[in-house]
Amino acid sequence: MINVAVLGYGTVGSGVVEVIEKNKDMVNKKSGQELRVKYILDLRDFPGDPYADRVIHDFDKIVNDDEVAIVCETMGGVGAAYQFTKAALEKGKSVCTSNKELVAKHGPELLRLAHAHNCNYLFEASVGGGIPIIRPLNYSLTAERIEAITGILNGTTNYILTKMEQDGADFESVLKEAQEKGYAERNPEADVEGHDACRKIAILSSLMTGKNVDSEKIYTEGITKVTADDFVYAKAAGRSIKLLARSRVLGEDEVLAMVAPFMIDKSHPLAMVNGVFNAVFVTGNMLGDSMYYGRGAGKLPTASAVVSDVVDCARHLGRIIMCFWEDKDAHIADISGVETAWFVRVKTSALQQAQAALGAVRTLEVPGRSEDRALFTKPMKESEFAKKCGELGSDVLGTLRLY
Amino acid sequence: MINVAVLGYGTVGSGVVEVIEKNKDMVNKKSGQELRVKYILDLRDFPGDPYADRVIHDFDKIVNDDEVAIVCETMGGVGAAYQFTKAALEKGKSVCTSNKELVAKHGPELLRLAHAHNCNYLFEASVGGGIPIIRPLNYSLTAERIEAITGILNGTTNYILTKMEQDGADFESVLKEAQEKGYAERNPEADVEGHDACRKIAILSSLMTGKNVDSEKIYTEGITKVTADDFVYAKAAGRSIKLLARSRVLGEDEVLAMVAPFMIDKSHPLAMVNGVFNAVFVTGNMLGDSMYYGRGAGKLPTASAVVSDVVDCARHLGRIIMCFWEDKDAHIADISGVETAWFVRVKTSALQQAQAALGAVRTLEVPGRSEDRALFTKPMKESEFAKKCGELGSDVLGTLRLY
Repeated sequence: MINVAVLGYGTVGSGVVEVIEKNKDMVNKKSGQELRVKYILDLRDFPGDPYADRVIHDFDKIVNDDEVAIVCETMGGVGAAYQFTKAALEKGKSVCTSNKELVAKHGPELLRLAHAHNCNYLFEASVGGGIPIIRPLNYSLTAERIEAITGILNGTTNYILTKMEQDGADFESVLKEAQEKGYAERNPEADVEGHDACRKIAILSSLMTGKNVDSEKIYTEGITKVTADDFVYAKAAGRSIKLLARSRVLGEDEVLAMVAPFMIDKSHPLAMVNGVFNAVFVTGNMLGDSMYYGRGAGKLPTASAVVSDVVDCARHLGRIIMCFWEDKDAHIADISGVETAWFVRVKTSALQQAQAALGAVRTLEVPGRSEDRALFTKPMKESEFAKKCGELGSDVLGTLRLY
Repeated sequence: MINVAVLGYGTVGSGVVEVIEKNKDMVNKKSGQELRVKYILDLRDFPGDPYADRVIHDFDKIVNDDEVAIVCETMGGVGAAYQFTKAALEKGKSVCTSNKELVAKHGPELLRLAHAHNCNYLFEASVGGGIPIIRPLNYSLTAERIEAITGILNGTTNYILTKMEQDGADFESVLKEAQEKGYAERNPEADVEGHDACRKIAILSSLMTGKNVDSEKIYTEGITKVTADDFVYAKAAGRSIKLLARSRVLGEDEVLAMVAPFMIDKSHPLAMVNGVFNAVFVTGNMLGDSMYYGRGAGKLPTASAVVSDVVDCARHLGRIIMCFWEDKDAHIADISGVETAWFVRVKTSALQQAQAALGAVRTLEVPGRSEDRALFTKPMKESEFAKKCGELGSDVLGTLRLY
């Protein structure tokens, strides 16, 4: 029997307990022995809960109990979660987490600590919720040189963009609805400004390059400027609009990474990833393109991913199975030199001027719309585009990168 | 250093050698030591080939060389490949294969043999070519009870159906073109009649249930009856036509499996899997839906999957890491009792009669077509549908299951 402690009995933590219980025959078979949730750490009590007797309030009890081999950190944040994770790893207890913020911020240190104490720090649930992506990157694509990763990595923004597309609604009203339904937080900034997706692509980029990719150095643009009008033109052009988190290896130790809304062709597999679903599109030098699709968040999918890490720890007790990246920072290329083709929506009166300035390869008129027109540019440097767009001033109504 | 032997220097075999060579820094890093291709077994000689000096014609040399730890079986077929695989496993050499026919036919025996000799029989490349699916099912979805798997598992038929859809062409002409381009074999039966997809869904079903699912007992229907006219109606209905290999757990030891062309809604993620791409759609009881997408065939993608198995063997020498299923056969449910909704194309003159007989929930008329009409039925038992359709006789021009 292997004893497990769950830190934080919120959405994901209670899901972890539920998955271990409901699928115990499968989980125990795959683990090679019985998994038991011995402790649940939370500040609150849960009278009436079937696991109320496991709830404790003192982390020391867990860290000092030699019977506890595996800890699930489902608290979130980088405060107590960081302290508890360090303390557990220092005692040789493996830690499985869904906390992308902590992995993105302190990943290399925690991996090093786990290694020094002959245990594992696993984080399948930190990216893409229930989509198995960390383990395939680490264990399946072992004959590949991964060249690029592009993901739809945030369920809230993908839900909002999908609703805007389907209903022709504007950002603010869909956000409000999403908040009412619980799909978006009351303070939605981390999602809608792209920070959540940024942390996840930082983790994937670190795995891809083997070097630390600092999420704070990744160019990040959210979806707050995407309008219902942009979607009208996207539809007319056979495209959709998605918040993409992209990363590409440029050379030894150098990576190009960014998070931004892109106008994507409908025939691309990422274009059909709708609602709260997420997907990770991976390009390898032998395999070509592959894609991993599933629920990017949610109690049970995320918990299932945490428990898959617990199972992996259980069958490799005393063995190090983590994927690693070096503490050394990868160089993140400045995006100003990147060549990108653009969608630009302008006032009808400025179409000719914009066309000439931006070297448009195509213009688009939507029947019944007199106020605006769209054009598509050839690839040009980000800095060049920014300059030319600036010169056009308020005649530019909307811009989106093409993918 | 770990010595590897490659059996068969054809498309996949030469790809295996190429992947090990081209990505050797990555492959050796992930393996934990250097991999070396010591022998290449083939009947032919390859003068001028960079690996010509490794080519031998006598399998005994491989099986009797204690230095060879891992064998890649990339010959195909169930004759010599079967004998050589058994002989290698009996000597404790792990075998990695792309041979779905052999896995589907002798999987349990070979897995048992590998287990008895403390080595592994791995077959990631046997299903979905380069798509990592066996390892995710086995190592990632360990906290899941897998309830259903639906795959587009054959690249040739998916290429043909995609071309029929895009060009409005008929089956025969697209098949001919595919044969000229090398996307279809001169004898295309194994692909177009669904046998190849059937073997792959049998392997996935065996992994899902933990019991042996006999491919020969799976109801299998190919794509030869799908017409350009069917695609006209599919398009009008917002649907596509795909050859789906489906498997669903019905109860303890019982599975429902079938291979057939389905008319699938365009909004389903499988509908956008086009050309030679394949995908596997997996439903778990906690995770919900997830999908794995990539190149289902081709030299380098398939070779990359074989080498990923080699790497896994290399880092687990002397340890058993295989997924298993029992020798005991799973019960395969008779499809006659399954409830399915249908697309039916009938002569215009017979529409009313067909509507009444089949209880159509919707009819469809395509402008400019006078000769035929389509209807969509409510779900009904396969046996009931077959009986009613038989009664309508030659008035029925085409039928497809809905998905």
